[in-house]
Amino acid sequence: MPRPATKEKILSAALKLFNEKNTQAATTNHIAAALEMSPGNLHYHFKNREAIVFALYEQMLSKSVLANAALPSSITQVHEHQIYLAKVYWAYRFFNRELLFLLSRDPKLKTRYIKENTAHKQRIRIVFEQLSANGYLDIPADHVYTQLTDTVLLCNQFWHSHLETLGIEVDEANFAGGFEHIEGAMHPYLTSKALEELAALQDKNLGKKNI
Amino acid sequence: MPRPATKEKILSAALKLFNEKNTQAATTNHIAAALEMSPGNLHYHFKNREAIVFALYEQMLSKSVLANAALPSSITQVHEHQIYLAKVYWAYRFFNRELLFLLSRDPKLKTRYIKENTAHKQRIRIVFEQLSANGYLDIPADHVYTQLTDTVLLCNQFWHSHLETLGIEVDEANFAGGFEHIEGAMHPYLTSKALEELAALQDKNLGKKNI
Repeated sequence: MPRPATKEKILSAALKLFNEKNTQAATTNHIAAALEMSPGNLHYHFKNREAIVFALYEQMLSKSVLANAALPSSITQVHEHQIYLAKVYWAYRFFNRELLFLLSRDPKLKTRYIKENTAHKQRIRIVFEQLSANGYLDIPADHVYTQLTDTVLLCNQFWHSHLETLGIEVDEANFAGGFEHIEGAMHPYLTSKALEELAALQDKNLGKKNI
Repeated sequence: MPRPATKEKILSAALKLFNEKNTQAATTNHIAAALEMSPGNLHYHFKNREAIVFALYEQMLSKSVLANAALPSSITQVHEHQIYLAKVYWAYRFFNRELLFLLSRDPKLKTRYIKENTAHKQRIRIVFEQLSANGYLDIPADHVYTQLTDTVLLCNQFWHSHLETLGIEVDEANFAGGFEHIEGAMHPYLTSKALEELAALQDKNLGKKNI
């Protein structure tokens, strides 16, 4: 197996430090020290901490963003994608936790983020429309699509902060509660076909746990 | 009419500057200059900018927090309270816009905020339970109360940031969209009694507009 390239090693060490502390407490010198690397060598690969944050954001996107043609189109696919996304977002949790601070510090990141978030909003809408077309959702009016799409955006971006502002220490389980909130918001619009699929999924998951 | 006390004048000038710029760009010197007051006089009343932010937060609470006995118990009261709250929150919009930054800068404010926000969560739940008891909501399961309560918290705290992260310039109208999102989340659980009251309210508001 080839050794990971230096760039990858730096990103991996930075991600660990950013998650454990925060991006302000973990300087490029700390990251270099964690890798027993000279600060000069690190700066050869990344100009500054902003460049590392930006690269980690792109890495997170490469793991989480689906092409429009690959977006979930059944309730099972949505459910499985949400479980997967919760893991990816948790692995990069510093980004979610410090989102507004990071955007305010780096105009380049902010521009990139807004562009991606706007595309994300469009993809969410496509998913809800596909679920309707395939008989999983019964949407009574067009503005309900907007309603559900905004719920997804609020939860994906601010669930971590929501817990923090109630004094709740965030862990992987309550962090994933954002996705449960999304499923709860969809619930009134689920068809019997969707409810049957969800019940079957739950049986399968419970079965797995018993093995 | 008595002249407003110096403390009140300082808070009023600070609020204006914080809303127009932000709390970092508006220093105590800027606030003193806006009042043609010496910085020493201002510091006699408020030790620093944090103390001004804290006092403005308390002022906002005094205008928005209801005693439990005075909480809305009909759909009309909820609707009117939301219109009122949207105005108060907009008047103190710097606080909502910079929420996470302000909490990270001042541990005393963070402690106070978490305590108040936890009480706020309990009040929201009481409102939903009162609406159910009075025949306005038909809640099928206990966790739906949690669902709706979390929606209110997410919207009250992060609707401004939600718009910003889509590159949307926030104004009083789209800021109030957070309350429309809350009403949308309640909609699947409204009874016919609630829907009739809401329709009557809309007629009344439309009537007012035509005058």
